[in-house]
Amino acid sequence: MIPRYSRPEMTALWQPQARFRIWFEIEAHATDALAELGVVPKEAAEKIWAMNDADFDVERIDTIEAETKHDVIAFLTHVSERTGPEARFLHQGMTSSDVLDTCLAVQLARASDILLADLDKLLEVIERRAREHKLTPTIGRSHGIHAEPVTFGLKLAQAYAEFDRCRTRLRNARAEVATCAISGAVGTFANIDPRVEEHVAQKMGLTVEPVSTQVIPRDRHAMYFATLGVIAGSIERLATEIRHLQRTEVLEAEEYFSPGQKGSSAMPHKRNPVLTENLTGLARMVRGYVTPALENVALWHERDISHSSVERYIGPDATITLDFALARLTGVIDKLVVYPTRMEKNLNKMGGLVHSQRVLLALTQAGVSREDSYRYVQRNAMKVWESDGALSLLELLKADPDVAAALSAEEIESRFDLDYHYKHVDTIFARVFGQA
Amino acid sequence: MIPRYSRPEMTALWQPQARFRIWFEIEAHATDALAELGVVPKEAAEKIWAMNDADFDVERIDTIEAETKHDVIAFLTHVSERTGPEARFLHQGMTSSDVLDTCLAVQLARASDILLADLDKLLEVIERRAREHKLTPTIGRSHGIHAEPVTFGLKLAQAYAEFDRCRTRLRNARAEVATCAISGAVGTFANIDPRVEEHVAQKMGLTVEPVSTQVIPRDRHAMYFATLGVIAGSIERLATEIRHLQRTEVLEAEEYFSPGQKGSSAMPHKRNPVLTENLTGLARMVRGYVTPALENVALWHERDISHSSVERYIGPDATITLDFALARLTGVIDKLVVYPTRMEKNLNKMGGLVHSQRVLLALTQAGVSREDSYRYVQRNAMKVWESDGALSLLELLKADPDVAAALSAEEIESRFDLDYHYKHVDTIFARVFGQA
Amino acid sequence: MIPRYSRPEMTALWQPQARFRIWFEIEAHATDALAELGVVPKEAAEKIWAMNDADFDVERIDTIEAETKHDVIAFLTHVSERTGPEARFLHQGMTSSDVLDTCLAVQLARASDILLADLDKLLEVIERRAREHKLTPTIGRSHGIHAEPVTFGLKLAQAYAEFDRCRTRLRNARAEVATCAISGAVGTFANIDPRVEEHVAQKMGLTVEPVSTQVIPRDRHAMYFATLGVIAGSIERLATEIRHLQRTEVLEAEEYFSPGQKGSSAMPHKRNPVLTENLTGLARMVRGYVTPALENVALWHERDISHSSVERYIGPDATITLDFALARLTGVIDKLVVYPTRMEKNLNKMGGLVHSQRVLLALTQAGVSREDSYRYVQRNAMKVWESDGALSLLELLKADPDVAAALSAEEIESRFDLDYHYKHVDTIFARVFGQA
Amino acid sequence: MIPRYSRPEMTALWQPQARFRIWFEIEAHATDALAELGVVPKEAAEKIWAMNDADFDVERIDTIEAETKHDVIAFLTHVSERTGPEARFLHQGMTSSDVLDTCLAVQLARASDILLADLDKLLEVIERRAREHKLTPTIGRSHGIHAEPVTFGLKLAQAYAEFDRCRTRLRNARAEVATCAISGAVGTFANIDPRVEEHVAQKMGLTVEPVSTQVIPRDRHAMYFATLGVIAGSIERLATEIRHLQRTEVLEAEEYFSPGQKGSSAMPHKRNPVLTENLTGLARMVRGYVTPALENVALWHERDISHSSVERYIGPDATITLDFALARLTGVIDKLVVYPTRMEKNLNKMGGLVHSQRVLLALTQAGVSREDSYRYVQRNAMKVWESDGALSLLELLKADPDVAAALSAEEIESRFDLDYHYKHVDTIFARVFGQA
Repeated sequence: MIPRYSRPEMTALWQPQARFRIWFEIEAHATDALAELGVVPKEAAEKIWAMNDADFDVERIDTIEAETKHDVIAFLTHVSERTGPEARFLHQGMTSSDVLDTCLAVQLARASDILLADLDKLLEVIERRAREHKLTPTIGRSHGIHAEPVTFGLKLAQAYAEFDRCRTRLRNARAEVATCAISGAVGTFANIDPRVEEHVAQKMGLTVEPVSTQVIPRDRHAMYFATLGVIAGSIERLATEIRHLQRTEVLEAEEYFSPGQKGSSAMPHKRNPVLTENLTGLARMVRGYVTPALENVALWHERDISHSSVERYIGPDATITLDFALARLTGVIDKLVVYPTRMEKNLNKMGGLVHSQRVLLALTQAGVSREDSYRYVQRNAMKVWESDGALSLLELLKADPDVAAALSAEEIESRFDLDYHYKHVDTIFARVFGQA
Repeated sequence: MIPRYSRPEMTALWQPQARFRIWFEIEAHATDALAELGVVPKEAAEKIWAMNDADFDVERIDTIEAETKHDVIAFLTHVSERTGPEARFLHQGMTSSDVLDTCLAVQLARASDILLADLDKLLEVIERRAREHKLTPTIGRSHGIHAEPVTFGLKLAQAYAEFDRCRTRLRNARAEVATCAISGAVGTFANIDPRVEEHVAQKMGLTVEPVSTQVIPRDRHAMYFATLGVIAGSIERLATEIRHLQRTEVLEAEEYFSPGQKGSSAMPHKRNPVLTENLTGLARMVRGYVTPALENVALWHERDISHSSVERYIGPDATITLDFALARLTGVIDKLVVYPTRMEKNLNKMGGLVHSQRVLLALTQAGVSREDSYRYVQRNAMKVWESDGALSLLELLKADPDVAAALSAEEIESRFDLDYHYKHVDTIFARVFGQA
Repeated sequence: MIPRYSRPEMTALWQPQARFRIWFEIEAHATDALAELGVVPKEAAEKIWAMNDADFDVERIDTIEAETKHDVIAFLTHVSERTGPEARFLHQGMTSSDVLDTCLAVQLARASDILLADLDKLLEVIERRAREHKLTPTIGRSHGIHAEPVTFGLKLAQAYAEFDRCRTRLRNARAEVATCAISGAVGTFANIDPRVEEHVAQKMGLTVEPVSTQVIPRDRHAMYFATLGVIAGSIERLATEIRHLQRTEVLEAEEYFSPGQKGSSAMPHKRNPVLTENLTGLARMVRGYVTPALENVALWHERDISHSSVERYIGPDATITLDFALARLTGVIDKLVVYPTRMEKNLNKMGGLVHSQRVLLALTQAGVSREDSYRYVQRNAMKVWESDGALSLLELLKADPDVAAALSAEEIESRFDLDYHYKHVDTIFARVFGQA
Repeated sequence: MIPRYSRPEMTALWQPQARFRIWFEIEAHATDALAELGVVPKEAAEKIWAMNDADFDVERIDTIEAETKHDVIAFLTHVSERTGPEARFLHQGMTSSDVLDTCLAVQLARASDILLADLDKLLEVIERRAREHKLTPTIGRSHGIHAEPVTFGLKLAQAYAEFDRCRTRLRNARAEVATCAISGAVGTFANIDPRVEEHVAQKMGLTVEPVSTQVIPRDRHAMYFATLGVIAGSIERLATEIRHLQRTEVLEAEEYFSPGQKGSSAMPHKRNPVLTENLTGLARMVRGYVTPALENVALWHERDISHSSVERYIGPDATITLDFALARLTGVIDKLVVYPTRMEKNLNKMGGLVHSQRVLLALTQAGVSREDSYRYVQRNAMKVWESDGALSLLELLKADPDVAAALSAEEIESRFDLDYHYKHVDTIFARVFGQA
């Protein structure tokens, strides 16, 4: 957890105090169910609930753990110090993992809720900017090379659709991990009735794990962290787009640069896309956590504890980093400074090359073979390309005898029309946002 | 693609011949739609369909590509050599990626169908063996150490539930990638009507990509390969279980060893779990492909082609390897030699330690504090542990004055009962398989 | 950084206070060199050195950074607040990365020194235990199956050789990253003389970076973190060995279990290899940091800042975790409880199967073909295998007519000799430790 | 192995025929040594060498393996079919891994030699182009934003230094894996004299593995493949640079575009940096193989065989792909079309902003505080930035009263001098290439 890449709500979720609170609730709800089943006295269950958050003394628990080398036992001992002899009715027939794994499920479910809210905000901002620039012309590029016209709104619509998919994936991933296991030392319910599990699951907002082994199986968590890795990939994609657009030679959009901000300690003229570069790095981290999560699946027999240390890192690190990254990206898009004039200037700088395909198609429609059509257009396009945009494709084509033999000057000119490219923008917006 | 880890059906899907056939169908269906819209002559569309599989000459296409350095153009040129001048109506308003990405979607969808069938077979075999050993007693282990009794059927039920989740994940992953894009050079449909995309999608069994950019966005493929990585993790888990069970000192189950098989070139006595070790390695490979797939998401602008080489490797390698691994695992479980006698012997070898929790719980129920109860049982258990199972926990506990003060000999003895642990096996089976 | 997996010396290295101190030294040494070259007044250089560690107010620097959004500028502003107007002579002709990258080089070099000392201690402990058990007989296993006899000392000698290689690798990796760059905004030395770089390098214990671009090239850091990943792999290997040896059925060695320690909250009889399981998880984390480090290499043009956030995580996390893991492993080996009696018992449990190869060789020497020899031995070995060690390979072989036709009973018996296997232990020890 | 990304020499190394030849040599050399030691008859050793390459019938060996399920036994059986009864003296006291691991060592050593030759060629080409453009002015960029002037030769010098480091790393990596183990079933030399290992090592050009366990330890291979991953990172870095330089708006350099080549099936005007994009993808693959190699280290006990399948993939795939990528990159740099005019145009397009630092330094030298100097320059620079290069920084600064109060017009003008930036190019070239 790196403070500068952390936000308070997500960070709080992973603090010892929060964890102990969740442990306590799991134990206390389980004791309620045990009382209901007559296994422990009802008074004991009630007495236990009297313990409140202020009572969890993290330092004291650490001290006990230093001796027992077992975190849950340290916690239970501490609860018993505060609650009195009734505490012996806690944890009846349970094993530590019942508490630990169910707690992790609660934490990941809550982390997912924060991340889902982040995605909602991001999507809202992307949609607003997409609609604002729905018909702002800009050049579409493939391979970094001018291809054909698009609009800036279409670029954002694409990002919207991608993060909308991420939202669906995250909901699925949340469902994967939001399960409760209270099944005892090897998952047989030998010393604890399955109804206790059902009760705790319902109270903690989880579903019941159909078959656990002592632990909740880690394929669930692998799927969860893999999904966060995919979302990180999508963050990197949009961040990379902004980085490209802010390049000096392109400069079609720019991260907001606040008054007082300094771009470089040496060069006072600099305004760098540092937020999106930062997002690129953060994406690498979140993706990097996927590999250890995948390696965590193959625990030995009913369980080993090798996954635990991994999760102590990636549980907080992946969710805190992703939360921060989503919020940062939302801010970047929200305040992104867009330069339509520069977009238009760039769009026009290649002497009309962006219309080459339409002439190719017109030639084939006029009966020229595909191969010949391609050759006629390409030989003129290459001259324009090499002139650095000084020559005009339209003029060269009109002067080319092979082209002129197939198409009149008017027919050629009619292929150099920008609006032609935008006739389906509404269709696409309707597909992405539900309505154009 | 490693021949020894490949099966024919999946391998065929990735051969050039199969790819060209899919390209052809995409182009021909698109031409049908264009004819319907009046963009190209209906006769041309019909003429094109006359080309049949035997006509695709992979070598000839390679030769053309060597000059044009463009695979789709080489293909189209070849089709035009075979089909005649009508071929110029192919690919009208389309871009190469319309063909390539839609083809990859078809291949990954078909690969998924093979993998789903693999999973069905694996699940069927696991269920059969699970029911066979539903009540075969065996020791449950955590940390590789004896914990409490389970049944061998429960171990397999756990695997069943895990692969059943994998099936759901794979279905989701299939839906992620099974989309069709026929949207032109930058995804604007400038030169091709969206209805062509709808027609091709429907004919090829895909859904329509809501917004493409020239390419289908690669977050879809990242999610797909990440899902295969998770499934590989689950394969490794079950493989690791078999490897553990076959260890000389454990020997509770064994891979089938065929007549004529040799375990070692040097040591004629060897029977090694080589299939499951092999599965462990194959799982590493399938997981290893996740990272490049995640790095493929952040293409530049509307597209670059960096993802393409990656997919030429991992498209075949991940699906072929996983198909082989699932089939191999199915065979291992199907023919697994199980040794219930050895399981029982192992279960009993620790002098009754596996019953320690029940005595602990009985003591707390009898009014002893949790901490004292733990200490009384632990001090006797440690003696048994150090005797290598020569001492009996039951006898030691009966002789321990603190324990004896709280529990009668009969009460202690009643806690050393195996069946007690199996009373919820039916519950778990019902959860996992739908019925006990 | 996870407190429970961190040790103070390594952690301190990565604290803001330590970083600011290194920044300050780099700036002050550079100012010395500038003064020597006559670029800035000598008095200014002297004045600056008066600032001492207590003066760095981390909170104040954070406050300034919140406005400037630039960490080095915030630091320089703070220094100027404390030092006075002479501070304007700091950072003359330098760029932030000159400070940041050279600081990271110092930190990684110092981290390496700590890790090298960790390795020295680990190697010392492994050698001591290896010599202690140089001739302690134990079964060698391949595929988890009994193979032929080794000694426990040989297992440790293997670990020694592996960590000795890790030491060499880490020394190489340290040399990779211990370079100094003071070359200005794009690495041209436009505004700073290369002699400043040489001076700072020498003072900070670094070599000069031959060509920087503003940043020190990140292939160096990639190599560094990849090396840490390899060391983590070796940690996992030895940890896995201990985990296997502690399994209930094997129990040839055991992690030290301290008085008061509790192995399970539910089962008082448990003594689990939790330290080595923990090391397995920590190894996954250190390996997981390799991927982002590799992705950091391809910065855009002369530099971008995407690597920076990654290094804020993995700089501390990889070195702190590895330091902790090496120390923990050292403790495990140091206090490992070894059970030679159990080793002997296991070694003998397979009815002499471990001698199968020697009989095979004797048969071939006696003129039987390799294939026939293998078959004769294998058919008897399989019977012993299936008897769970109840039958004796020696007796069966003597009774096998084909074997008896080639070898006398004495000749067969002479192949069942344990010492035969240990005649080259001295050779191997001499190779590994320099002397037997 | 993807044919289009493979070159014949490297591919041949991994074919079955080549592998069987190496196996044969290892066995035959070992038999020589055994004969020398009197373990087997000298005539047998001589007889065996008579077998020649044409004799290895891959199909026949596959057939035998289908029955024995053991590749080395299948090979030995085949050799015995061809050589006659003397073949029984082959493999005396050896284990399969002695052959397999030593063979892999030979293959990786030879693969390294090919890769080292690739690097030599790449370095030669980079140096030639670097010297050609030693003083070709171009803008240095950080964050994709214009920073200060560099030369194109400096960019290439940086790449040279990086690949020169890669050469050193690869030499180290080659030494890591080029070891020979002939130590028997568990590495004890029980049935084979260490002198046999020494003989085979010397004949095969390897060093002796000090302590093996049956297998050569896999930390060596992990280090090897990690090193290839780092080299891939460096390839991606240079490829990314070319991709950036070829962007339409930048167009300072371009991959060679051959006559007849087609950039797009739809747009005849396209010339895309497809080779360097391809290299980006190939780099992802080679890096992707690092993770499975790292996971291969922790084999169980003396060995398991999980690493084997991984190496069947990554042995060929990583080396063949890297060989192809290095050769492709060499070709790209060799034929790279460089546009100095466009570089100059871009360099000048920002109205002199690239000189902002020099004015900042001049102000501080003239007694203005660093903070004020920064503010004066920044406020003028921002105006130029927002004018899209229409305004001139020089003119604005001369007109700024605060700046004018500290520096005369001549003093300001003298800071706008390009050559000033190149005075240390010789120094850097001398550092990188040995001489300027």
